[in-house]
Amino acid sequence: MTDSTPLPKSIATVSLSGTLPDKLEAAAAAGFDSVEIFEADLLSFDGTPRDVSRMASDLGIGISIFQPFRDFEGMEPAQLARNLTRAERKFDVMGELGTDLLLLCSNIQESTVNDQARAAADLSLLAERAGQRGFKIAYEALAWGRHVKFWRQAWDIIKRVDHPAFGLALDSFHTLALGDNLTGIGEVPGEKIFFMQLADAPRLTMDVLSWSRHYRNFPGQGDFDVAGFVRDALRAGYRGPLSLEIFNDEFRAGPPRPMALDALRSLIWVEAEAGHTKLPPAPVLGGFEFIEFAVDAPAAERLAAVLGTLGFELTGRHRSKAVNLYRQSEVNIVLNAEPDSSASEHFVRHGPSVCALALKVDQVAPTLARASALLSPTWAERTGPGEHRIPAVREPDGTLLYLVEPADAAAMWTQDFNLAPPAEPKPAASLNIDHIAQALTPGSMDRFVLFYRTLFGLTPEPTIEFADRFGLIRSRTMKSPNGNVRVVLNISESPATETARFVSEAAGPGVHHVAFATPDILTATQNARAAGLTALPIPANYYEDLAARFGLDDDTLAELEKRGILYDRDAHGDFRHAYTPSFSGRFFFELLERHGYQGYGASNAPIRLAAMARQRELGK
Amino acid sequence: MTDSTPLPKSIATVSLSGTLPDKLEAAAAAGFDSVEIFEADLLSFDGTPRDVSRMASDLGIGISIFQPFRDFEGMEPAQLARNLTRAERKFDVMGELGTDLLLLCSNIQESTVNDQARAAADLSLLAERAGQRGFKIAYEALAWGRHVKFWRQAWDIIKRVDHPAFGLALDSFHTLALGDNLTGIGEVPGEKIFFMQLADAPRLTMDVLSWSRHYRNFPGQGDFDVAGFVRDALRAGYRGPLSLEIFNDEFRAGPPRPMALDALRSLIWVEAEAGHTKLPPAPVLGGFEFIEFAVDAPAAERLAAVLGTLGFELTGRHRSKAVNLYRQSEVNIVLNAEPDSSASEHFVRHGPSVCALALKVDQVAPTLARASALLSPTWAERTGPGEHRIPAVREPDGTLLYLVEPADAAAMWTQDFNLAPPAEPKPAASLNIDHIAQALTPGSMDRFVLFYRTLFGLTPEPTIEFADRFGLIRSRTMKSPNGNVRVVLNISESPATETARFVSEAAGPGVHHVAFATPDILTATQNARAAGLTALPIPANYYEDLAARFGLDDDTLAELEKRGILYDRDAHGDFRHAYTPSFSGRFFFELLERHGYQGYGASNAPIRLAAMARQRELGK
Repeated sequence: MTDSTPLPKSIATVSLSGTLPDKLEAAAAAGFDSVEIFEADLLSFDGTPRDVSRMASDLGIGISIFQPFRDFEGMEPAQLARNLTRAERKFDVMGELGTDLLLLCSNIQESTVNDQARAAADLSLLAERAGQRGFKIAYEALAWGRHVKFWRQAWDIIKRVDHPAFGLALDSFHTLALGDNLTGIGEVPGEKIFFMQLADAPRLTMDVLSWSRHYRNFPGQGDFDVAGFVRDALRAGYRGPLSLEIFNDEFRAGPPRPMALDALRSLIWVEAEAGHTKLPPAPVLGGFEFIEFAVDAPAAERLAAVLGTLGFELTGRHRSKAVNLYRQSEVNIVLNAEPDSSASEHFVRHGPSVCALALKVDQVAPTLARASALLSPTWAERTGPGEHRIPAVREPDGTLLYLVEPADAAAMWTQDFNLAPPAEPKPAASLNIDHIAQALTPGSMDRFVLFYRTLFGLTPEPTIEFADRFGLIRSRTMKSPNGNVRVVLNISESPATETARFVSEAAGPGVHHVAFATPDILTATQNARAAGLTALPIPANYYEDLAARFGLDDDTLAELEKRGILYDRDAHGDFRHAYTPSFSGRFFFELLERHGYQGYGASNAPIRLAAMARQRELGK
Repeated sequence: MTDSTPLPKSIATVSLSGTLPDKLEAAAAAGFDSVEIFEADLLSFDGTPRDVSRMASDLGIGISIFQPFRDFEGMEPAQLARNLTRAERKFDVMGELGTDLLLLCSNIQESTVNDQARAAADLSLLAERAGQRGFKIAYEALAWGRHVKFWRQAWDIIKRVDHPAFGLALDSFHTLALGDNLTGIGEVPGEKIFFMQLADAPRLTMDVLSWSRHYRNFPGQGDFDVAGFVRDALRAGYRGPLSLEIFNDEFRAGPPRPMALDALRSLIWVEAEAGHTKLPPAPVLGGFEFIEFAVDAPAAERLAAVLGTLGFELTGRHRSKAVNLYRQSEVNIVLNAEPDSSASEHFVRHGPSVCALALKVDQVAPTLARASALLSPTWAERTGPGEHRIPAVREPDGTLLYLVEPADAAAMWTQDFNLAPPAEPKPAASLNIDHIAQALTPGSMDRFVLFYRTLFGLTPEPTIEFADRFGLIRSRTMKSPNGNVRVVLNISESPATETARFVSEAAGPGVHHVAFATPDILTATQNARAAGLTALPIPANYYEDLAARFGLDDDTLAELEKRGILYDRDAHGDFRHAYTPSFSGRFFFELLERHGYQGYGASNAPIRLAAMARQRELGK
């Protein structure tokens, strides 16, 4: 299929929080073409369906469908008669709403009979009534329907009904949750697919009803191949709306405006992933060009001292601003103490902390165009005359993400900074950025996954969990295809965990640590200690257990313990890492040596969290 | 089995939040005899195992077991050798901890072979090593063990090992989660059951590992027959500790001291339910004797006016305090504006709100004795000379729950109050208290369930969920066996829901509404309106849908809509109910007419929540 007109985008009102007007406004503001009116939202709304229609029309959005109608087919005759009366009442509502499409879910009642002919006969009556009034019915197989669970079963019945007012509704959740797919959809004429609902979800092992009601999320946030689903439906000729129907506990509690933006972003992305439209390409990432800390003068001095123990040297002073560059090997750390800047705003709110990251991208322009197409705002700091203007995008928590092409990087440093001559190389202790870790506010994991995945093509690794003394931490790593950029996202629902403290009002959002890879962690930690930095102290009990678990020899263990180095091993290799104490409770650094190992030392995270809690409690 | 000595009580450190010292102190303060040392807690502790032993000993508690040891049996020979070395290291730790028992979980590794003889041979080596050093191994079948999932499989292997240092660990979660039970445990000699771990859990349909790691709770809080499990183990002759091992996301985030009290309460209760010990009996409940609101003079006037519209009359004035009694039929509402009282403290903190409930109990003394045996503090308000002293217990949120015997009730009113002569009866509008509803702080549902269940014998009904505009509400009703007392517990994790607002700092904890049953809701609402009270307005769309759903005739519908009455129906009958607008956002009243219907109108709750949100936003 070649590039073609984007399909209309729709969202069910149940996917967003707030009143019905809040939901309509959020959907319209984000740029949706239409909404599905979810009946419960209408019932609790203090206005007529006609008022809803007028509101939508004033906002410039349509109403794609009214839903759900339930439990119709295969009931005993008296109930069938009541159901037809019930349908007429809903047609009345549809007339007022100004939509011609009603979503009908397959019957979940125990009393519905398992008889396709009977179901088809009942549904023919419904189709006839709908058709007479100019309405259409989109019939959807619920994954927990009593007899009709798969879209092919729904389609078999639709063929029997054989009425122009009766067609198919596809829903990616119901299909993919059952391990099914759209193989065979080619048999369905495109115009008989009346509607398509999309939802992603994490792959969970639980009853499908609870899974559906609590854990759906936007395409790109979960584990389902929603793009493949869309591709198959488009191949079959579907050209109706791509519509989101998301039941998610966190989304229900989140603010509707940013959620609606995420929603539309996910549809724009999945439509492109399905090959129907084209987005500017995601950049090829070369790692982090620099990491910028917001500081004031005293914090700058303290932080420069810590960086010094890790081998960083003051390499450049900005020509017009109170901004210094510290460099070790290829790693650039910028300390920004410029008043009246974005960094100073950040400092006032959060104290010393990471206020910006800079990604090395192969090309800036298409990356910005992609961000823009994906509804992500771009940004540029004011610059002095002749200075480099570095474009940026903003992460969901507001952290700036600068975009730098390799060709521009050197120019940027030389034009904007007075650079010192390069220091002698110290190969044994050379560093590069292995990964960064961000602590997220509760409820925002899916938002960050979507951001990194859609704008930058990072893919999420499986969610892991570990325990802090005051609650669980969930962790998910986003990784670029070439492995150059790895971002560990940590989140805690409990406000008392160390992770939650890193993200609280006091400590500021965003990056809580930067992990530097070194080819020789013994030397690196030795150098750091010689320069005055003591690694975060690790309890002796940990090393006792290491000995038991991994059978390390006594000399190795003694070395690790002496330097506060933690150890882990997986099927691919081993891993040594050590932490600096936290800087004013706001962030810290990690030194690591990696030999094939694929993880991030999560099994040691509880040890690190407890050690940091002790440090905090002792006021160190 | 006749009444006998209580078994020692133990708790795994993983069940409580905080540092290892926090956990030991909480367990000791609650009154536990011992703790299980969970290895992860030791590893992150900055002190030696000997320090832990000393700390426990100083606190007067023992260490019942060290756990878990894992993945031992059925591995290839080189790994077996490493595992034996690993075990010796753990024996060293046990020696320092001063415990002689190690918990070994059945192997979960893919590489472990399915061969009981081989497993037994490996475990014989382990048992021999343990025995030589004076230690014992309690072998536990994990529900997700690779080959050993059921306790009978573990027991078969233990019989083969046939070593005095090798015995069985039972765990109620692993057994009951698999739908298994202890049938056949009589075959196991009591002294070969080395240890017993207890956990309850809600009945969920999900993978057992996730279920176990996140949703366990204390006996009495879930759906398992933990008492039956204990009974069977005691019949088999087990006399070791009853020990809790609870993995629960909420408990991990909760404060350890109250959690440890709940923990011990649950064990004392389950031991009695199992028939091993006797508790003073739970009271036979006769309903609510009165409901007390903390007010000041202006709030008292406003609230008296609302009560007046529901047919309440000022029936008594307290002889020595600024406390008035309002009565309608048999329902007593007390408005307490007495300065320098428990109610005035409550008023200062929370504004006008329910500060106490009074339960009619058949006998006060055994109820207080039971509360005391279950570690619940009792309380008595200061009284004037010759006035009634009403004993009370405190709910987990601090709300006072007075206990009143029928014989004392009349005396209490006549002695303490100057009573007006009884008003003319108004049978058509007579009320009684159908239920009360409480909004709980996040994470406290299990605490309330345990409180009402253990002290008062209320049983929990299944959890239901409904949607507020800003998040989900979970609801669970606690009901006395005779149905006289019904308490609906509502909880919301999202702080923006109406339910969460009722429990926030401003609105105070506890009771957010009182539901009055009437034989004739039409008359009751008509009277209320005539007296100046307009019911909470319900949108017309709701009635459109009612017509479609239930086929009510137009006259009935018109009556319901005119009076703001909601409707529901279940297999047992139908239900009509209406709400007053909320009183300063703090509480409201419900009028209901019930005909066989078993529920509480949860399907209408979203309508009520949205209507209250509108009322709040309009500042009415």
